[in-house]
Amino acid sequence: MTVSISGAGLVGSLLATMLAQRGYSVKMFERRPDMRSASISAGKSINLAMSNRGLRALQIAGLDKHIQSIAIPMYCRMMHDEQGNLREQPYGTAGQAINSVSRGELNKTLMSIAEQHGVTIEFEQRCVDIDVNSTTATFERTDSGERYNVKSDIIIGADGAFSAVRSRMQQHDRFAYSQSYLDHSYKELHIPPAADGGFRMAKNALHIWPRHSFMLIALPNLDGSFTCTLFLAHKGNPGFESLKTEADVQEFFERYFPDVLPLMPTLMEDFFTNPESSLVTVKCSPWTMNNVMLIGDAAHAVVPFYGQGMNCGFEDCRVLLDCLTETHDSWPEAMQLYMQYRKPDADAIADLAIENFVEMRDKVADVHFLRRKQLEAFLHQRYPDKFVPQYSLVTFHEDVPYSEAQRISRANAQLVDSLLEIQEVKMDWTSGRALQALDKAMSHVKPLSHSPISPAHR
Amino acid sequence: MTVSISGAGLVGSLLATMLAQRGYSVKMFERRPDMRSASISAGKSINLAMSNRGLRALQIAGLDKHIQSIAIPMYCRMMHDEQGNLREQPYGTAGQAINSVSRGELNKTLMSIAEQHGVTIEFEQRCVDIDVNSTTATFERTDSGERYNVKSDIIIGADGAFSAVRSRMQQHDRFAYSQSYLDHSYKELHIPPAADGGFRMAKNALHIWPRHSFMLIALPNLDGSFTCTLFLAHKGNPGFESLKTEADVQEFFERYFPDVLPLMPTLMEDFFTNPESSLVTVKCSPWTMNNVMLIGDAAHAVVPFYGQGMNCGFEDCRVLLDCLTETHDSWPEAMQLYMQYRKPDADAIADLAIENFVEMRDKVADVHFLRRKQLEAFLHQRYPDKFVPQYSLVTFHEDVPYSEAQRISRANAQLVDSLLEIQEVKMDWTSGRALQALDKAMSHVKPLSHSPISPAHR
Repeated sequence: MTVSISGAGLVGSLLATMLAQRGYSVKMFERRPDMRSASISAGKSINLAMSNRGLRALQIAGLDKHIQSIAIPMYCRMMHDEQGNLREQPYGTAGQAINSVSRGELNKTLMSIAEQHGVTIEFEQRCVDIDVNSTTATFERTDSGERYNVKSDIIIGADGAFSAVRSRMQQHDRFAYSQSYLDHSYKELHIPPAADGGFRMAKNALHIWPRHSFMLIALPNLDGSFTCTLFLAHKGNPGFESLKTEADVQEFFERYFPDVLPLMPTLMEDFFTNPESSLVTVKCSPWTMNNVMLIGDAAHAVVPFYGQGMNCGFEDCRVLLDCLTETHDSWPEAMQLYMQYRKPDADAIADLAIENFVEMRDKVADVHFLRRKQLEAFLHQRYPDKFVPQYSLVTFHEDVPYSEAQRISRANAQLVDSLLEIQEVKMDWTSGRALQALDKAMSHVKPLSHSPISPAHR
Repeated sequence: MTVSISGAGLVGSLLATMLAQRGYSVKMFERRPDMRSASISAGKSINLAMSNRGLRALQIAGLDKHIQSIAIPMYCRMMHDEQGNLREQPYGTAGQAINSVSRGELNKTLMSIAEQHGVTIEFEQRCVDIDVNSTTATFERTDSGERYNVKSDIIIGADGAFSAVRSRMQQHDRFAYSQSYLDHSYKELHIPPAADGGFRMAKNALHIWPRHSFMLIALPNLDGSFTCTLFLAHKGNPGFESLKTEADVQEFFERYFPDVLPLMPTLMEDFFTNPESSLVTVKCSPWTMNNVMLIGDAAHAVVPFYGQGMNCGFEDCRVLLDCLTETHDSWPEAMQLYMQYRKPDADAIADLAIENFVEMRDKVADVHFLRRKQLEAFLHQRYPDKFVPQYSLVTFHEDVPYSEAQRISRANAQLVDSLLEIQEVKMDWTSGRALQALDKAMSHVKPLSHSPISPAHR
């Protein structure tokens, strides 16, 4: 059976490998030139935070070891306040980490692995039409403008947030679609390695400068540098529109990020060269029409604040594979099942990602919020089968569907509220009397349970 | 100044006339052939219910008298139950009515009036591109496929729910967009005139057969016929997908609409010839980019259950004119102002229209709901400056913005709840003691007030 995949990004490349391993004849078509030879960016610049869901999908394809060699584990958030003081917030329990990975390096590696599995990749081919009825894709060579048709058994749109495949599906009746933008945009900045090639800040952390309505983050790269991203409102003051001159930018950084200024020798160049990019959430339905389907950002683009965009796309591949197994590779049934499992989870992570933006930029600097987080971590440690914080569910529990993580964390919030009404717990939850009260209250709580993430887990 | 309008539908044709009256040089471009000479449908078949908002806009252009001659006033909803019993529900107070108008006749009339005002209309021209920066539209002749550019000072997309102008704006960054479909679709059916040319049911009413999850409606035409529309789920049973054979349709109508069957001699032919059409809500933002703007369904397509789609589009024209007056015809400012006034109102009527579907098909057959409606009508009569029901606000109060109608009707609901807690009112609100209690309670309620619908009303 032949599968055509539009888009040789992260999700398309992983899926191509998985399907080739399963015996399908897979061809990929990519609009951009081959980034392994051309000197181009990977499209989006934010470094990726690979976590359990992404790793699990790579593991299924036998690629996890391969990828871990290009990743830097980050065990905590490192918060920078306006005086330059630091405070660590562990992401999970000991040893749990998310991984900083370069989008470009990861994509190149995944493309090469796909080719090793017999997948062919045609570059500089723009998808211009999809005939859903005959499963025919029309591509245009970006150099000559020549158009040609490709007929296959299955067409998969893995072509990102602005998917061409989806835009053709959108023209069919009853295709629900929404794109919404945050008021904030982002701009990439850069912290180079130290003179000795080392890291200028703690290496194994995701650095955050939370400033309520905006924030700066930094993720480590293998060469000792950090990729930084400034998230800031497009309009208003502070806002990108009000940062017009070098003096504006200098003043803004002196005021809000004084400890970063000496680490960014190319700040002005980066600031005025790098584009301001918008933050979009895309939802649509259905993801499948006849033998055409969407996966990854093409089906559900999310904002980057939970570090789950790529992880979710990779998880799509894992679930699709499980659905193929469940249906003995009957694609019409497998695709229906895939959408039934994934659509509620994609909707959930889209909403969680927007909520996490508020948490990252604003709440992490709030003492009440921090105290609550500490109690959550304490509960997680003492009652690991009954209490798992939302961040852990999303990031480290790859068998818990996102929609269930959302449901459980709402129940958690009510539970924490009720526990904080116990006077002893409110005073000091490590005291003997508080522990007694907690143990009693928690004895009535059911152990964590959740619906399956795919048909393989029923 | 030159204005190009894409789409010669109802809103485009009215706006063209208004702008020509104001001294602009206006050209319209329409994808379809001229419906005044060709034998084609007006695109959408549901008859229109013209009410105060639409009439007010026509009045401003001096066209209301013209239109009233092709309208049939409907003073009430005529409910048909499953036994064929009838029950009248007045729409408002004595003399208040909505007006049944044929979409096709209205459109033809408005196009001819626009031409009388010097507007030119080019038919069979498909809009294929818009360059927002240079205010240039590209059209394609549908017969020859030839393309050409039209540069003007202002471009207005009045090209409906599937607007080509909007689809080009959607490609710009930060354009928020959503399209969502109801699970229900609709199909047009037909009741011909009686043998003597008269009406086979009450003429001056909007007939409704509410059946909880679905409904049939009928609006009178000038020739004695009724245009009927069946609103029914696409899937499931009952649903269009389960009505496959003539026997299915016969059984369905015998069971749910027995009184209609003898009035529809062409039921089978109509049912299997007429298309099943979907029901879409479109929201987007911004409506204006540089000198390009959207109006009517192109900016905000709504479902038809409040009978406000065309009324809202005509009101857009009225408000845009007020904004031009306010800004001394400075278009950039006028367009900004127009969107500030209209966007909340368009969002409100979109939501109200979906809510009214539930009311029409389901609640109007519920005794508690009917009792509540009766109390509302009573309050409206006794305290006309303090209590106006939602339907009246939307339909008969053309100076109350839709968003205010929504706000006021929420307050109304709370007020009615609290009045129904008074024992005497609950028992019989016309009793002397109930009236005393009502008068006392209402003495604390402020007279109706609302924000202005346009800058002309501040």
